[in-house]
Amino acid sequence: MTLPNRFDWEKLQQFCSDVFQNAGVKKENAETVAESLIQADLRGVDSHGVVRTAIYIERIEKNMMNPFAEPEIEAEDTATVLVNGHNNLGAVVGKKAVEIALEKAKERGAAIVGVKGSNHFGTGAFYALKAIQQDMILLVMSNASQTMPPTGGKRPFIGTNPLAIGVPAGKETPFVLDMATSVVARGKIIVASQKGEDIPLGWAVDKDGNPTTDSEAALEGAVLPVGGPKGYAISMFIDILAGVLTGAGFGKYVNNMYENWEEPQNVGHIFIAIDINRFIPLELFKERMDCYIQEIKAEPKADGVEEILIPGEIEFRRTAERMKNGIVLPEKTVQELDQIGKKYSVDLSKAAFSENIAREAINKC
Amino acid sequence: MTLPNRFDWEKLQQFCSDVFQNAGVKKENAETVAESLIQADLRGVDSHGVVRTAIYIERIEKNMMNPFAEPEIEAEDTATVLVNGHNNLGAVVGKKAVEIALEKAKERGAAIVGVKGSNHFGTGAFYALKAIQQDMILLVMSNASQTMPPTGGKRPFIGTNPLAIGVPAGKETPFVLDMATSVVARGKIIVASQKGEDIPLGWAVDKDGNPTTDSEAALEGAVLPVGGPKGYAISMFIDILAGVLTGAGFGKYVNNMYENWEEPQNVGHIFIAIDINRFIPLELFKERMDCYIQEIKAEPKADGVEEILIPGEIEFRRTAERMKNGIVLPEKTVQELDQIGKKYSVDLSKAAFSENIAREAINKC
Repeated sequence: MTLPNRFDWEKLQQFCSDVFQNAGVKKENAETVAESLIQADLRGVDSHGVVRTAIYIERIEKNMMNPFAEPEIEAEDTATVLVNGHNNLGAVVGKKAVEIALEKAKERGAAIVGVKGSNHFGTGAFYALKAIQQDMILLVMSNASQTMPPTGGKRPFIGTNPLAIGVPAGKETPFVLDMATSVVARGKIIVASQKGEDIPLGWAVDKDGNPTTDSEAALEGAVLPVGGPKGYAISMFIDILAGVLTGAGFGKYVNNMYENWEEPQNVGHIFIAIDINRFIPLELFKERMDCYIQEIKAEPKADGVEEILIPGEIEFRRTAERMKNGIVLPEKTVQELDQIGKKYSVDLSKAAFSENIAREAINKC
Repeated sequence: MTLPNRFDWEKLQQFCSDVFQNAGVKKENAETVAESLIQADLRGVDSHGVVRTAIYIERIEKNMMNPFAEPEIEAEDTATVLVNGHNNLGAVVGKKAVEIALEKAKERGAAIVGVKGSNHFGTGAFYALKAIQQDMILLVMSNASQTMPPTGGKRPFIGTNPLAIGVPAGKETPFVLDMATSVVARGKIIVASQKGEDIPLGWAVDKDGNPTTDSEAALEGAVLPVGGPKGYAISMFIDILAGVLTGAGFGKYVNNMYENWEEPQNVGHIFIAIDINRFIPLELFKERMDCYIQEIKAEPKADGVEEILIPGEIEFRRTAERMKNGIVLPEKTVQELDQIGKKYSVDLSKAAFSENIAREAINKC
């Protein structure tokens, strides 16, 4: 039987959820992880989509993650919370921490939630979008295992520690920034490697510190921080807040999920939630955001540019498009998912996209 | 009489303070502004040092800033404060807001203070260092008048909105990140222009959107965001938090202090203060910071690199060096200061550095 390459997003999400449930993850948490992966694929962030299913499953199987643990509040004060993820899946821990942050910020005006004992938590946008749905502003930071040299160094020391920010708007598309502190996300090099493609010069160095266009060599080497010392400094700061401050790992003490099979990752996150109404009435804020966005988009464009975009705008459009037309996956990913499906008695082919089903695009946010 | 070109930092600070006092700024506030300017010169951030005295004085003289106003709390909740600067000098408003943020964070664990009705506030490091002195973590953001095009645009729309972060360490040098969201701070182009020097290609475009190495042309054009769309997105986010959220100006509504002589700047800032003890005991945090810093600095170095540096490390060394050996100012700046001094009956020549005074370097932090 030929495997499909185009998938219905809802069916694919159900597939992932079923796989995780059959691998021991409880229903609610399996749904969270599946939602996180599919949302990434819908938004076009393929590097953080279902391509990660295999590694998550493998870490569960090898007892490197504990799907039976419950994330727990370890310390709490008026505006601060420290959550211990107890090594559950990153998306499960992250979602719980964000719920705590948003609830507390509604009550107190602002909240800072630090997390230790977590794992790779998917995209930062997953959490930023949850805040936007509740008309809140959220800053999201996470550390990650070593992938970038410090400025002046030659081997990986800091992670591509992501920074995500969600801000609601009124009639306009919300502001969703989700970036790695590298020139590009390491996941993009993983995708290039899986597709057998080269990468542009300037993205990464090989294991000897030399510039390379070979995606395989880059994965063995290091991606470079964005803007040189500025990206290095921001990445280090994220590691300090998410790792040093929370009691999670930092620097070399955040374990690589692909390479370390003896210890949990001990990833740390930090979430800063802000209730807009404490500063300015929400409706006025939304009007000001709309004005800001409209004015930027109306700016004169550089030669050859069709449109000035707001951070997150492409991803909202892609989500609408992929909800309507399905998610296309690389052959390698499809084969991996099919094998996982067979192992956990879930039929991937049932998630195939059907051209006959007329689908309306739904803006998830 | 020949004017000196090397100045004693304390005497130069006194000179600035006296000038501001004689221009109508009350003693305490004049001292704050002078401290902010001299600290920048000591740290080697010449673009934000006494070179700004002339413009601050001119805006006071032309009633574009109000040194008689007192910054005021306009809204307050458990973990949030909105401060109206009432158009006092930026350093005065910023210092007041940071004091509020640090006090509240000690009480509540964390605090977010938004500021509207402010002016150019000097360096972000000025505030970050105040937090470090109290063993607190501080994030500092400010918007600024339009200097950079959005990605895809060709004329200035967003500011080089700075981001600064201060984190205490134990035995090691504290972490002090202070960066513009441009490839370089616009102030560095101002300094190049004042020295009659060219700038490297890639820093800026001219007024028609073409790349340029001419510092004068760059000042008429636009500096570029760091890392392309990433810098654009971070700058926009800072404008959202510091401007859209606080009720300050944002985008084109933040007025240029050199060009707009009809309205106040209406700059906005945001300060996020974190009490470390709410997450992890302070002494343990400092040990972890020391470990992190020592491990990064011990990394193998790339060819030709003498030392791996921590953000802020160069500036601490330069401060020690300039405290000991004096601050050298460009001739143009000296002449400007001398004229201001004559106008406000303060003798600049008295601030000259004397080789005869043996000075010990004092680490200010």
